[in-house]
Amino acid sequence: MNKITVGVLGASGYAGRELCELVARHPAMELGFASANSRAGERVRAAGQSITLIPTDDAQLDSADLVFSALPHGTSATWVEAAASAGAKVVDLSADLRPGNGSGQRVEAVPYGLTELMRPELLDADIVANPGCYPTAILIALAPLLARSLVVKGATINVSAASGTTGAGFTPKPELMFAEVAEDFRAYSVGNEHRHLNEMRAVVSNLGGDNDILFTPHLLPVARGILATITVPVTERLTNPIQLWQEMYGHEPFIEVSDTPPSLRDVVRRNVVRLSVVHAANVRQPTLVIVAAIDNLMKGAAGQAIQNANLMLGIPEIAGLPS
Amino acid sequence: MNKITVGVLGASGYAGRELCELVARHPAMELGFASANSRAGERVRAAGQSITLIPTDDAQLDSADLVFSALPHGTSATWVEAAASAGAKVVDLSADLRPGNGSGQRVEAVPYGLTELMRPELLDADIVANPGCYPTAILIALAPLLARSLVVKGATINVSAASGTTGAGFTPKPELMFAEVAEDFRAYSVGNEHRHLNEMRAVVSNLGGDNDILFTPHLLPVARGILATITVPVTERLTNPIQLWQEMYGHEPFIEVSDTPPSLRDVVRRNVVRLSVVHAANVRQPTLVIVAAIDNLMKGAAGQAIQNANLMLGIPEIAGLPS
Amino acid sequence: MNKITVGVLGASGYAGRELCELVARHPAMELGFASANSRAGERVRAAGQSITLIPTDDAQLDSADLVFSALPHGTSATWVEAAASAGAKVVDLSADLRPGNGSGQRVEAVPYGLTELMRPELLDADIVANPGCYPTAILIALAPLLARSLVVKGATINVSAASGTTGAGFTPKPELMFAEVAEDFRAYSVGNEHRHLNEMRAVVSNLGGDNDILFTPHLLPVARGILATITVPVTERLTNPIQLWQEMYGHEPFIEVSDTPPSLRDVVRRNVVRLSVVHAANVRQPTLVIVAAIDNLMKGAAGQAIQNANLMLGIPEIAGLPS
Amino acid sequence: MNKITVGVLGASGYAGRELCELVARHPAMELGFASANSRAGERVRAAGQSITLIPTDDAQLDSADLVFSALPHGTSATWVEAAASAGAKVVDLSADLRPGNGSGQRVEAVPYGLTELMRPELLDADIVANPGCYPTAILIALAPLLARSLVVKGATINVSAASGTTGAGFTPKPELMFAEVAEDFRAYSVGNEHRHLNEMRAVVSNLGGDNDILFTPHLLPVARGILATITVPVTERLTNPIQLWQEMYGHEPFIEVSDTPPSLRDVVRRNVVRLSVVHAANVRQPTLVIVAAIDNLMKGAAGQAIQNANLMLGIPEIAGLPS
Repeated sequence: MNKITVGVLGASGYAGRELCELVARHPAMELGFASANSRAGERVRAAGQSITLIPTDDAQLDSADLVFSALPHGTSATWVEAAASAGAKVVDLSADLRPGNGSGQRVEAVPYGLTELMRPELLDADIVANPGCYPTAILIALAPLLARSLVVKGATINVSAASGTTGAGFTPKPELMFAEVAEDFRAYSVGNEHRHLNEMRAVVSNLGGDNDILFTPHLLPVARGILATITVPVTERLTNPIQLWQEMYGHEPFIEVSDTPPSLRDVVRRNVVRLSVVHAANVRQPTLVIVAAIDNLMKGAAGQAIQNANLMLGIPEIAGLPS
Repeated sequence: MNKITVGVLGASGYAGRELCELVARHPAMELGFASANSRAGERVRAAGQSITLIPTDDAQLDSADLVFSALPHGTSATWVEAAASAGAKVVDLSADLRPGNGSGQRVEAVPYGLTELMRPELLDADIVANPGCYPTAILIALAPLLARSLVVKGATINVSAASGTTGAGFTPKPELMFAEVAEDFRAYSVGNEHRHLNEMRAVVSNLGGDNDILFTPHLLPVARGILATITVPVTERLTNPIQLWQEMYGHEPFIEVSDTPPSLRDVVRRNVVRLSVVHAANVRQPTLVIVAAIDNLMKGAAGQAIQNANLMLGIPEIAGLPS
Repeated sequence: MNKITVGVLGASGYAGRELCELVARHPAMELGFASANSRAGERVRAAGQSITLIPTDDAQLDSADLVFSALPHGTSATWVEAAASAGAKVVDLSADLRPGNGSGQRVEAVPYGLTELMRPELLDADIVANPGCYPTAILIALAPLLARSLVVKGATINVSAASGTTGAGFTPKPELMFAEVAEDFRAYSVGNEHRHLNEMRAVVSNLGGDNDILFTPHLLPVARGILATITVPVTERLTNPIQLWQEMYGHEPFIEVSDTPPSLRDVVRRNVVRLSVVHAANVRQPTLVIVAAIDNLMKGAAGQAIQNANLMLGIPEIAGLPS
Repeated sequence: MNKITVGVLGASGYAGRELCELVARHPAMELGFASANSRAGERVRAAGQSITLIPTDDAQLDSADLVFSALPHGTSATWVEAAASAGAKVVDLSADLRPGNGSGQRVEAVPYGLTELMRPELLDADIVANPGCYPTAILIALAPLLARSLVVKGATINVSAASGTTGAGFTPKPELMFAEVAEDFRAYSVGNEHRHLNEMRAVVSNLGGDNDILFTPHLLPVARGILATITVPVTERLTNPIQLWQEMYGHEPFIEVSDTPPSLRDVVRRNVVRLSVVHAANVRQPTLVIVAAIDNLMKGAAGQAIQNANLMLGIPEIAGLPS
């Protein structure tokens, strides 16, 4: 079988490297080029093979059937245009084209690649905006409640989440050095200031919610993984709340609804969202506590990008993805 | 100067070992005995000295001016009685005599050793119930709002907190082994089921609050430290919210009110609560986000126990405590 | 294709769980049973499936074409006999039948499964003694020198090695708890007292070496991986020492000879030995420094066991093994 | 009592920050200035106080009684000269003036601050070259054998050592980021190429040894600490080898001779060398295995610098040092 040629722009960051690894192991894809600017010329390993990173300007966009852009926010949109103009399908891992980011008709025209919720729009899309890592975990967790209008109208949904350090990128910074992160834990973007907030608000609204989100992310001393603990005021006490998630996601290959709260170990290196749901005891306002876990580089970035690319290319959705 | 003789019951656990270390370094205390049941006969090191653990039954309770009990919940209360009957002052680190635990007049008669909030009652106390680790961080954080009746009546206070593994004790369990905890993160007691909840609810009520608490603890891959992220619906938007904490705690040697969110590194091995406060942006309901950090073995256990003992014994409150 | 039925005895430990995972993902094997004594009745996950551990006494040994025994040293040999008598081929991961262990003809009759060095003997073996984790890394590293008689006769080969905590097993012990291992590093079995020493000495002798080994293992704060740093006095200064390893191992799918020293990241979750070789500068006695890395649960245990089983069963040697 | 004014050049690195912390807590010292070039203007915390880093060029060298230079190798010597010319005593933490480094009479004239071995020369020194971290652990371990001429003449002393990441400095580099170091372990400067080798060779020679050292350092996933495992061929089998160390170091406040091998936990945040010694079993050549542990930032850098400064200033040697 002829393999589909794929290019990766921005291949030197954590998401870009994960993409190269997944493409190299994918049964129906082959890696045409992998670009990086600051690290052009370096060699990276993917699936046992050695790849030389080329300058992004040297990428032969028209040689690829599909291009993944893992370029920085702000830079990516231009390259997405260029790749699309060159005839390639494009999955953009940056925030540039996601709901709640930027402005104008371009964003509206590009489907949001939260695969399980947006599958019909993705099937014949030429460009897809791949979701952020936190939004992936949180929106998959909230969707069944929003679909049934069970969230108290106007109420605040509280999200406390924590991410491994690969979520902060591969650019060396003092606060990301081993001796600074080990044995530490801290909140950041405190006061609802995280750049993913608009993306989540926009999609919650699109899904019919009239709710604020109060989102506090934290930095974990682990390399990979996101765990989100979400408390949602609901209109009534449900007898068996988990049933809603089982009904909506029961047949999804990459969503696991669990009786017990997930931990990072359950999901790391796998392209899944794993989640649990229970009613909070000892509170007057009926409230659900949802815990959702993903690998930020897999279902939160490169894995979901492959999942979307599979759909866009007519390949089986699960191809090349570790479950 | 004659040193005050102090005994430690339950000295083989993490809190007990920390107590021995602090007593051994304390300028006005000396360690009379240190007991442990399952590890009786073992030697532990404290401040460079070697101590032999004796069976708890062999402890000469009447030889001590003050006894710390770090025995397990359920077991401790009996030993507290025995030590008090033998004439020793007692600081009980177990939950047995704390508000919201057990029943009966004993609990009511014993002051709760959340030092900064209860100082007058502690000065001439014979027995003090030392607070739990999570409640210490969370109640110190909430007290200024409760004192001013600024929390929305009836509202749920949301607390997402995370602790290092020493909070789970020194008894070997599979889920606490290095290879299980490293690179992992998980929630536990999900659904508001943690045993510290009653303690927090009782004290919030004592401080005038009419609020539920929704508390979700998590296990961190670090040895020491607790970070609590607390969101509180308030009755009005405050111009300079941090001022409330500065006013209430400005002169406290062991409470640090910070402009930036604290991290575990700021507090580990120190007997302090460090906290920050900001209003959440992007929400309709005025809500404060408080982040509070402590070392669970210091201000969350042994350090606060020494602080209380200092008060009970008429020693300067800061003696022997790393700030 | 009919899959080969495989049983795992001792499936609750780290090596046993890794075996179940590899068998569950193996294209030509299926898991017939997985036994554990202390944890019988528990469910473990392997490749996304849930397996119930049965008591070892209940294992239907004659239902399996091949049995892996990951039972404890001392216990395993009896079960190996039983499985062989029931007609199954057996790979024994314990030390019971390895060179330098125990006594008598049984040990001599059982081939040692250091695959790359012993392949001819393994092809039609009914029972194979799978090597220890440290010996795998160290003996693969030394073999090319021993084959050419380049080690100074009578000289001591110095080995300093370090292992992740899964090498110490899954039985909870205080010294293996997270808070004890994190931020620590220590040597153990100091003074050449490690139980793998006899195995290494016996094989070095079988390979023609007349050398003592001075072996000091260390415990690393990581879950998986072994790194061995080996210094070998050699009879002459070699112009291009790495060539010897390239010649001997150039075609091996699971041995990587590298220009730069390997690190654990290079090998974790892969069934490979990765090694580098250089001459030490600044010493009078010509000495090579070899650094070899493996994943202790893969090439150091379960992975090599599958590799050996593949050979014994006539399956392609690389089947089911992550490279 | 008037405190002695102390300056720290290069205060933004790990050793410099540790120095500021120790000076701030020292009963007889006060911090006059703390300089840094790339981070001038930043505030650092030391002992609860906030210090503003000044550009090194702005340091009032003549305002200090003693200056610590933690400036980079190559840069430091010039500043040491300048501070000495300005009338300050100087402890240089760089390699610039250590034995085996650079050339010329300056190096010969400056005593080497391996305190326990060089005390007489340090008492009235104006400038002291503070030893490297690895050499401190290794030379303290070897000295009793060299003093008795027990090492086999001409033999290679094998040293495998491992350091926490603070030993690699505070300049952000990709390979020192959390996600790169966690769960990893690797050797570096393999082939006896480490820059500390000359320092160790020179001092071994000064202590009467005629031996090569084969030194392989490794990078540990811990923040602090060095563990060195040293194998030494000796001229005879000693009945009770540890006695030699006990005799030489029995009265030293900062050297601990232990019956059991030390681990990093034993020494971290303390200004000590802790070591054990045993004969290797199962080898023909009598060989001792010494394991020595230090905190690389304390006894391996800032702590020993304070210890030396205390001697130079006529303060009790143990003042201000955590034991």
